[in-house]
Amino acid sequence: MTVEEIPLGRRERRKLETRRRLLAAAGELIAERGAATLRINDVTERADIGFGTFYTYFETKDALIEAVVSDAVAAIAAAIGTRALEYDDPAESASVSYRRFLRYASDEPAVAGVLVSLEGAEQLFENALLPWARETLRRGIASGRFDIDDLELALTSVAASALAAIRGILAGRVDPGAGVSGAVMMLRGFGLDDAEAREIAQRPLPRIELTTRTDPSGAPR
Amino acid sequence: MTVEEIPLGRRERRKLETRRRLLAAAGELIAERGAATLRINDVTERADIGFGTFYTYFETKDALIEAVVSDAVAAIAAAIGTRALEYDDPAESASVSYRRFLRYASDEPAVAGVLVSLEGAEQLFENALLPWARETLRRGIASGRFDIDDLELALTSVAASALAAIRGILAGRVDPGAGVSGAVMMLRGFGLDDAEAREIAQRPLPRIELTTRTDPSGAPR
Repeated sequence: MTVEEIPLGRRERRKLETRRRLLAAAGELIAERGAATLRINDVTERADIGFGTFYTYFETKDALIEAVVSDAVAAIAAAIGTRALEYDDPAESASVSYRRFLRYASDEPAVAGVLVSLEGAEQLFENALLPWARETLRRGIASGRFDIDDLELALTSVAASALAAIRGILAGRVDPGAGVSGAVMMLRGFGLDDAEAREIAQRPLPRIELTTRTDPSGAPR
Repeated sequence: MTVEEIPLGRRERRKLETRRRLLAAAGELIAERGAATLRINDVTERADIGFGTFYTYFETKDALIEAVVSDAVAAIAAAIGTRALEYDDPAESASVSYRRFLRYASDEPAVAGVLVSLEGAEQLFENALLPWARETLRRGIASGRFDIDDLELALTSVAASALAAIRGILAGRVDPGAGVSGAVMMLRGFGLDDAEAREIAQRPLPRIELTTRTDPSGAPR
């Protein structure tokens, strides 16, 4: 059977599957060894795909790395965001999410390091976070839990603060345990009093599995 | 007199003066028309310098633009930061500075637009702000005015939030008048109660001259 005879649906599925395998292999290798030493040959070998096939899917190694990190950020935001909406209290949702993003910097420094080094990292990170963050802030405003005058400003500020904290942790400027302090500042900023902000920010933070690939189609709005 | 005979001090002073004129001319042109249409020829003409001389000072047009914006950010941070330290209350210093940075985005969208489009804008902005922001936060912590657990986290969060707000204003996502709301969130985050945060954030904001070139050597620490 020649390529022309394969039904389009099947060819497309195969292409998507090959792309997925390349991304998964590259994701594993970046997490293991970092992006600086990543070689296309290692990626295709781990994905069990011919070296030449690589360029059907990605123009350059950097394009692959960017796709891996962009996917990873979307998947992590989806995982953290989905779990956050399970809490009844929007203040706890916000605190847990913020702290999980910061913990990710310590847990997965290689992937997080590539993220912060990408051109446009701020926008990429904010876009990934936005659906869940907006939903959490909306709930908090609607219930009177949060006292926020400007939702858009609050959203962009919180996303930028979290990414800046991740940058700071990776660079060694910020304490890896700063998540609690940051959550206290954020919750007070949203209008909670100090005692309550501290109590919520210090609650135990259950670990969740942060797969690097998730279907982000379940994002709110 | 040949070039060799000119005393080094004088030659160096001349070179610095030529560089300064190129930067000033480019800064004016960017503020007037934006960076996208900037032409080297227009810059050398306005600076009254031969076209060919340009490349003695800057390798590319982008290098010139980056130098202009980097200088402008340092100068603006110095102007805003110096004035901020004149207030006795660190809360007012922080509020006034934050609001002035946001107002700058509306007042000088061309220069601010180049800043946010630069690779490494976050670091550039944070570095320019840091000396004054650190001094303000230190004073606030020392006097008990601020309740901040982690100074480095607070610094990086505030710098990132301000730049994100500038990005949002330039992109039309954030209300240009969001400075007051942002200052309220920031001051509450630093531990002030809502009523006081609002009163301080809403005070009249005197205009100061933001020259694009200042000697930043007066930075604290």
